[in-house]
Amino acid sequence: MTIQIPRGTQDILPGTVEKWQYIEAKAKEICQLYNYKEIRTPIFESTELFLRGVGETTDVVQKEMYTFEDRGGRSLTLRPEGTASTVRSYVDNKMFGSPNQPTKLYYVGPMFRYERPQAGRFRQFVQFGVEALGSNDPSIDAEVIALAVELYTSLGLKKLKVVINSLGDKESRQAHRDALIQHFQPRIDEFCGDCQGRLEKNPLRILDCKKDRDHELMATAPSILDYLNEESKAYFDKVVDYLSALGIQYEIDPNLVRGLDYYYHTAFEIMSTSEGFGAITTLCGGGRYNGLVQEIGGPETPGIGFALSIERLISAMEAEKVDFPIEEAIDCYVVALGENAKETAVKLLFDLRKAGIVAEKDYQDKKLKAQFKAADRLKSKYTIVFGEDELAKGVVSIKEMETGEQQEVAYEDVVTYLSEKKSGER
Amino acid sequence: MTIQIPRGTQDILPGTVEKWQYIEAKAKEICQLYNYKEIRTPIFESTELFLRGVGETTDVVQKEMYTFEDRGGRSLTLRPEGTASTVRSYVDNKMFGSPNQPTKLYYVGPMFRYERPQAGRFRQFVQFGVEALGSNDPSIDAEVIALAVELYTSLGLKKLKVVINSLGDKESRQAHRDALIQHFQPRIDEFCGDCQGRLEKNPLRILDCKKDRDHELMATAPSILDYLNEESKAYFDKVVDYLSALGIQYEIDPNLVRGLDYYYHTAFEIMSTSEGFGAITTLCGGGRYNGLVQEIGGPETPGIGFALSIERLISAMEAEKVDFPIEEAIDCYVVALGENAKETAVKLLFDLRKAGIVAEKDYQDKKLKAQFKAADRLKSKYTIVFGEDELAKGVVSIKEMETGEQQEVAYEDVVTYLSEKKSGER
Repeated sequence: MTIQIPRGTQDILPGTVEKWQYIEAKAKEICQLYNYKEIRTPIFESTELFLRGVGETTDVVQKEMYTFEDRGGRSLTLRPEGTASTVRSYVDNKMFGSPNQPTKLYYVGPMFRYERPQAGRFRQFVQFGVEALGSNDPSIDAEVIALAVELYTSLGLKKLKVVINSLGDKESRQAHRDALIQHFQPRIDEFCGDCQGRLEKNPLRILDCKKDRDHELMATAPSILDYLNEESKAYFDKVVDYLSALGIQYEIDPNLVRGLDYYYHTAFEIMSTSEGFGAITTLCGGGRYNGLVQEIGGPETPGIGFALSIERLISAMEAEKVDFPIEEAIDCYVVALGENAKETAVKLLFDLRKAGIVAEKDYQDKKLKAQFKAADRLKSKYTIVFGEDELAKGVVSIKEMETGEQQEVAYEDVVTYLSEKKSGER
Repeated sequence: MTIQIPRGTQDILPGTVEKWQYIEAKAKEICQLYNYKEIRTPIFESTELFLRGVGETTDVVQKEMYTFEDRGGRSLTLRPEGTASTVRSYVDNKMFGSPNQPTKLYYVGPMFRYERPQAGRFRQFVQFGVEALGSNDPSIDAEVIALAVELYTSLGLKKLKVVINSLGDKESRQAHRDALIQHFQPRIDEFCGDCQGRLEKNPLRILDCKKDRDHELMATAPSILDYLNEESKAYFDKVVDYLSALGIQYEIDPNLVRGLDYYYHTAFEIMSTSEGFGAITTLCGGGRYNGLVQEIGGPETPGIGFALSIERLISAMEAEKVDFPIEEAIDCYVVALGENAKETAVKLLFDLRKAGIVAEKDYQDKKLKAQFKAADRLKSKYTIVFGEDELAKGVVSIKEMETGEQQEVAYEDVVTYLSEKKSGER
């Protein structure tokens, strides 16, 4: 009986994994240029972390977490997102004490949510994200957005839309909150049970409700932008000015909100506008959180970051038919005839690889013809052939597959010959 | 209240993560040269997979697994090792049907074992491993060993010992098994309860017992090498011949065994002989498994592979005081004076990074002197300084930090100037 892969997860196999490698390499390269450093946190954390860091009232925490007890009775949860873990590590390791501030971090790794599996949505998925902790300068908000845009555009995506909003500071949020309660309260019984519960606790989240999104009060709800105090407005203006200076086009959407209390000021999403990309068009979401570090037990520290799913990024690239520049060909295939020649082939292969040449041979006692076929399938650029006779003479035959050109080369010169061919010196 | 990292796990932070990046990049580079392709399997699998693939009687399965039920009542387990998952994927995805055989795979990723945390041993650790499926050619056994050795030596490790053994084929194993039972049975009551249980089920594992290792019967136990039939002996001879041809020194240790039934022929370990490396000297373990694919539900397919821990590899490098060639310096730090200049700095930073220059600026409203200090701490190679006056003239000042040399450069030439400096053209 075969054993199947767990529902909602996927294997990433050769032929596809190269796309992931390519994207991750690009993300790391851009992070290096922007001076963000990698952080790796554990796959699981104390459940308490996500209750506090993601929020007990969220769907993620209430319905989607992989929570379990370890053999010591601790409640652990597979991380559903990366920000809470990053902030926990920032606090745990007292990174706020380093003289290099802000602390600019990035992560790439699997996240876990027990959701209904559907096209492009997995229970284990990979997020790339960045977090900048310790700065209240609007230029870092612009930098974080620019980094995400740069990743997408450098990968060849063109059909992108950047949507931005401000949630204001504490005072602005409170004023907006009061206005929302006033707006919805008289007719709250027309809304779903969830929204009724949200009215007093977190009326902002009513705007996020999928069930009630067509209710007429939604369109007329008070906009946060009308409740920004002077300071919040100045901050937001700076952020969008910087974006303009960087040539990044954006739309302001006052309905783009974040439900949790510690989100302030900048909130943004990047969407794909590619046709046929499906209903979920959000590629990336981020924003400023000026309270999360305290919530996790650290000193008052502002932060901003984003997270994006690599799965969705690949879908967007495929929807736009962007090329993945992936090199599949190997440099050379070694064909040896006879028992002694085989031992020499093992040695030659080893020496070629040591010199940086991607080399392969047969391991299945294939006939000569089948070995040439294998070389073709692997798109080998060169084939080296020798038997006992050639070895006695100290030579091998090297064939360039594209041109068909064949050459006899002294055995001891093979590595140099192919190295020079590869580097273009010969 | 702060929230702590789960017991037995660690954060890998900037300053250390670069070691991981360096090692992983090296591993991937060598795998590419050897034509092994990456595979990524989920973090958790059906528990059943490890019962079958790792073995119900092993410590790993009995005591160390993170097993839990998901919200749908499925029993899942965080993977304790990589081979079972790789083979599950090989079977699930019918990789045996590809014309390119053997299937040569590698993986790098976190594994999980609920063990007592101690120096260098974590509950979440990272394994790098390779698996070659579909070949019974002893040259691939040598290749797999050579790949591991090549990784270690290319990272600068010198104090290595390769230990190898053969467990023979089914017939040889059976003969050896009978001899072991005969050897231990008369005095089995002098052994621990575990060993008494092993006598009939799996007497080979008695040789592995930590409690009874000093019992006098251990030293005189029949050696598998005396029970190899002709075919198994010929196979083993070939493997060690190839290793000799590759210049890889090895020791044969007939006590190097693998408890599970589907391990056949080659078994090997690579140890560190570095002083002060501690009691656990094994860096890497591997061997041939000619039965695992069937156990997981696939067709009869031979396989060989190894796994090694990156944590232990780093410890070995530290014990040998090997250098990690890590570039920490940034290319340039931008110091802008005045509100307008700041907006220009955001734009300049963006353009520099787009051109491949690692660039940074202040995000904390630091004073001029503090900004220069920050540039020093980041080991910036160049500092660009400008205020409103310079901008009015369309110039900036660029200082090379090492030489102290300062130069006025037209604003529009800054990116080209630094690109040329970086590439060595200027």
